[in-house]
Amino acid sequence: MNYFTFELIHQSQKSRARVGKIHTPHGVIDTPNFVAVGTNATLKALDSTTINNLGLQLMFCNTYHLMVQPGTHIVKKSGGLHTFMKRNSPIITDSGGFQVFSLAYGTVHDELKSRGQKKHDGSVIKISEDGVLFRSYRDGSPLLLTPETSIQAQKDLGADIIIPLDELPPYHIDQWQLRKSLDRTHRWEKRSLDEHKKNPKQQAMYAVIHGGIDIELRKRSCQYLSSLDFDGYAIGGSLGKNRQEMIDMLISVMPWLPYEKPNHLLGIGDLISLEQSIALGIDTFDSSHPTRCARHGLLFTTSGNLKILHASNKDSMEPIDKNCNCLVCQNYTRAYMHHLFKAKEMTGLSLASLHNVHFMVKLMERYRQSILEDKI
Amino acid sequence: MNYFTFELIHQSQKSRARVGKIHTPHGVIDTPNFVAVGTNATLKALDSTTINNLGLQLMFCNTYHLMVQPGTHIVKKSGGLHTFMKRNSPIITDSGGFQVFSLAYGTVHDELKSRGQKKHDGSVIKISEDGVLFRSYRDGSPLLLTPETSIQAQKDLGADIIIPLDELPPYHIDQWQLRKSLDRTHRWEKRSLDEHKKNPKQQAMYAVIHGGIDIELRKRSCQYLSSLDFDGYAIGGSLGKNRQEMIDMLISVMPWLPYEKPNHLLGIGDLISLEQSIALGIDTFDSSHPTRCARHGLLFTTSGNLKILHASNKDSMEPIDKNCNCLVCQNYTRAYMHHLFKAKEMTGLSLASLHNVHFMVKLMERYRQSILEDKI
Repeated sequence: MNYFTFELIHQSQKSRARVGKIHTPHGVIDTPNFVAVGTNATLKALDSTTINNLGLQLMFCNTYHLMVQPGTHIVKKSGGLHTFMKRNSPIITDSGGFQVFSLAYGTVHDELKSRGQKKHDGSVIKISEDGVLFRSYRDGSPLLLTPETSIQAQKDLGADIIIPLDELPPYHIDQWQLRKSLDRTHRWEKRSLDEHKKNPKQQAMYAVIHGGIDIELRKRSCQYLSSLDFDGYAIGGSLGKNRQEMIDMLISVMPWLPYEKPNHLLGIGDLISLEQSIALGIDTFDSSHPTRCARHGLLFTTSGNLKILHASNKDSMEPIDKNCNCLVCQNYTRAYMHHLFKAKEMTGLSLASLHNVHFMVKLMERYRQSILEDKI
Repeated sequence: MNYFTFELIHQSQKSRARVGKIHTPHGVIDTPNFVAVGTNATLKALDSTTINNLGLQLMFCNTYHLMVQPGTHIVKKSGGLHTFMKRNSPIITDSGGFQVFSLAYGTVHDELKSRGQKKHDGSVIKISEDGVLFRSYRDGSPLLLTPETSIQAQKDLGADIIIPLDELPPYHIDQWQLRKSLDRTHRWEKRSLDEHKKNPKQQAMYAVIHGGIDIELRKRSCQYLSSLDFDGYAIGGSLGKNRQEMIDMLISVMPWLPYEKPNHLLGIGDLISLEQSIALGIDTFDSSHPTRCARHGLLFTTSGNLKILHASNKDSMEPIDKNCNCLVCQNYTRAYMHHLFKAKEMTGLSLASLHNVHFMVKLMERYRQSILEDKI
């Protein structure tokens, strides 16, 4: 399968951190790398012609959202996601499972806040061995998400990397229920892989390792899924209720993943978690954190985070970051950005998002350089 | 005053329409031309680095809004509006009067709907011969708008073309009150001009012709204001309750304006009014209409307006306009734009705004060509 290969460039002498290159039909992804989230086939407030200039090598789109709107058949008719959204670099899509189960159970965060009460918003009609039947939030029409329909949807979307359907168990379940959920996830991932293999279409598929924060189950998941012919390994499911639980889990899990294949940490992108994960050998991670921060006026800089709405920026003629060569820092002052946010101008959201994505791209370049120099 | 000159290129043989060039310190404005409105020192959803590539030759910013946020002293400290917002082409600012009097009386539109009832939202504290005292909607602090403070504010902003303070009378007033208001406007415009002449700073000042739809008062206004040393003439005040009233007024007024100076029609930009006004000799007109339409999904094309949210666009692989070479039409389909609007993605608003502004720029080029060929 030479349309998708992982090339290991350097293994740090100091940690599990490593530098690599993932070769895909739409170009190279240098690793470790940050994957920006463009849920609805666009980053929020930025179009692809802008993003294509930023050097963002991998973008994450959400199958669940695209099934509901515009429908994956429309994307297929457009020639796939790359043509639809005019992106000329790699794309990864998820299975839709995370969103559907979040509707059913809430996220870990919701659950911790609500002490484990189940959400009942009526969107999920039925969960069975076959899959999940849910209602479109847009028009109420029923949609069936099974391993097979998820993969068919992801074939329509045509991303470079796709993900098998998994079950997202609630955080607060007992060992017996977690094991049952893991077994079903494994059956679903196998069915997804089988469906994918019928018609690979130059797509790669990453397995999703589950098991919550139960180390024995995580190990079992790694062992089972690495026995199947996946192209890479994502770490999903509940990553714990705080960063330390996640890091503890990753310390155990990372050595169990096939070393010669790329891996991905699902849904984590805050700067501290990211640095710690890189040292543990994570290759890519997706998160809407940098773009969401941007829309709330939290701008990343090489000397720490900047709250652009803070009054100290009101008459500051400095750029957001003196060390940044992005379009925003080359053209606009903090005073202007502060003004745009105060005046609630959408232009501010676009510029802030552009800056934070650019920051992440450059931060990743620096991390790769540090690994090459065995400093991480 | 050779930093601001109006060069007449061609007078149509068929109508009063004319082609000209306004030379300003920040470049040329080909006329007739459309002036996009960037109230808060940005077009909505588009930054200047994008606009600078569109060929939009003149942008309108609102002094009232910039006095309240960020304060004109901040813009001054930034080196003026051009530096603050990174615009390298001409800018025009208004006096702030229109917004302040809209707060006091409502707009003509409000008034027609409310049958002339006065608005009392408490923002305007006092109107006197000196000027208007009002409260900042942002922090409640009192702000004084007089001919002198308006011009000082516009000196801080540093636009290429500035506008004297005028009184915007309510639409429903009697002849005696309208005459009183016109006299005060003339006194204020004279004070504004005197203040401007103390320190021209390479800015040009356009008078604002008033008189509502009373032709005799309009004539008087033209006669008085053209006796003063203004660089151009804007037509303001109430332009009537419908398009026909405006056109009737313009038919009378246009011959009374100094032919050798540029003129401007304030706040009109719908496509029909614009075509009719050009034939009457209007050189420039500002309006937020094209960008506001864009944000509501109404896209301008060479074959008429397109409602992008209409279901017929759902799977259309056509660009918005086959004859358009803007970034949007060169890259995205109607299906993608439809999807962005359905998914309520800000990216859709940015792209739609970019397209409509580009459309206006090209439409104006075509009008100028038609006038050169005596077809209008």
